[in-house]
Amino acid sequence: MALPVSPDAMESFLLAAAEAGGTVALAHFRRRPDVANKEADKGAGRFDPVTEGDRGAEAAIRALISERFPDHGILGEEYGSERADARYCWVIDPIDGTRAFISGLPSWGCLIGLMEDGMPIAGIMHQPFTGENYLACGEGGFLLHRGNRERLAASGCERLADATLMTTSREAFGEGKFERFEKVSERVRLTRFGFDCYAYAMVAAGHIDLVIESGLHVYDIAALIPLIEQAGGIVTGWDGKAAPRGGDIIAAASKALHAEALAVLNG
Amino acid sequence: MALPVSPDAMESFLLAAAEAGGTVALAHFRRRPDVANKEADKGAGRFDPVTEGDRGAEAAIRALISERFPDHGILGEEYGSERADARYCWVIDPIDGTRAFISGLPSWGCLIGLMEDGMPIAGIMHQPFTGENYLACGEGGFLLHRGNRERLAASGCERLADATLMTTSREAFGEGKFERFEKVSERVRLTRFGFDCYAYAMVAAGHIDLVIESGLHVYDIAALIPLIEQAGGIVTGWDGKAAPRGGDIIAAASKALHAEALAVLNG
Repeated sequence: MALPVSPDAMESFLLAAAEAGGTVALAHFRRRPDVANKEADKGAGRFDPVTEGDRGAEAAIRALISERFPDHGILGEEYGSERADARYCWVIDPIDGTRAFISGLPSWGCLIGLMEDGMPIAGIMHQPFTGENYLACGEGGFLLHRGNRERLAASGCERLADATLMTTSREAFGEGKFERFEKVSERVRLTRFGFDCYAYAMVAAGHIDLVIESGLHVYDIAALIPLIEQAGGIVTGWDGKAAPRGGDIIAAASKALHAEALAVLNG
Repeated sequence: MALPVSPDAMESFLLAAAEAGGTVALAHFRRRPDVANKEADKGAGRFDPVTEGDRGAEAAIRALISERFPDHGILGEEYGSERADARYCWVIDPIDGTRAFISGLPSWGCLIGLMEDGMPIAGIMHQPFTGENYLACGEGGFLLHRGNRERLAASGCERLADATLMTTSREAFGEGKFERFEKVSERVRLTRFGFDCYAYAMVAAGHIDLVIESGLHVYDIAALIPLIEQAGGIVTGWDGKAAPRGGDIIAAASKALHAEALAVLNG
């Protein structure tokens, strides 16, 4: 792994790009229906705060990347890919957790990941409402929040019996897959639902031990893999192999917990 | 309904009491295991951030109530009841959502409700990490957040087909009751899990339309009933009757939505 810039410069750029996107997204968060109706009356068409927030946020992030790293590739949920064959490629989900976003819940996030030859090496999860920045700059994971900067460390929890497990929603699992999730759930200390990318940040921060999800896209996970790995955790597919493109994902606070969970998931 | 003080004074007192409790609770939020172990080494016994946070927060709130309203009753989750036969009785859950609390998730809250002759008339949900205060001071619901004060208004959503439904977790439902929840869930636009008292605040704020839960205690709901009612929503038991003591609860953004949901829940 070789960063295109120093870890300090990477951290600064991730923060600037996430804040640029997050500011746009936050301006559309908790917009009330009366605002929506007023805008519709103006002939602006059907008001869709998620789409407007998504597009505006991704455009702001892409502009910063193109200016600073004109040779790098970019893959975003809203505007597709450019220079996809470049050594370095940025992967953007401007609002991960759109269902939380439209429900007023601050568990969505602005995700930006950097891949080198297809493998994620740096990334950030920015929650603009709480002002939290969970980032991996290539030499560790850090939480920056209200002027504080602290190193992230996964819990190191090694046994399902001691673990807290999260997933966003049952509906996201494909045929027969939620039953496999439930086999793991039966063995953990606590299972919680909801929270989207925020759950992965909690694994990096040591508050949650395990996230198991299904059917993720590359932009749902690319930023979160380095975040958890550089905090001492592990992220793979359900087959135990690297899964930088998404799919069925397991994120764990330790190798031992990862192995035990995989054995139950596939057993 | 007659407040013991003016609405302005009620708002000020609710904010002061919730902040006193919230400050204590927040000091125990996201305490890391290494901190816990260090304290155990000191001979302080087994570290339990929830219990310590709960007790300290409730004690701080009770002290303020006893000083300001010495004749009022108090009922708290941690320290039980005193003067329970008084006309006015304060109901406290210092950390509602302890499972979220121990998982690092900012969906817990500090709940303080005021009852008059057994019926809730004022209350607050304070989330110390985000700095949000959702309160009902007797003449409306308000959100106070980072210096802003805005009136809360439920969405007014009138049909299940347009509604967003939330509940905290399947495990909280008694025998046969989650199946009744699922009948409602099948008819709504979107169902989300998790979020504890935060979900009720989102009903008051107009972002979520329906919360259906089971097996609540009086301190889980007393503060939230006036919050939703004074924002234009409705909260009852599954039997459609007032439920100030908790039990099986439905909170809805409009009377029409409440009626349709109850018909499905009981049909």
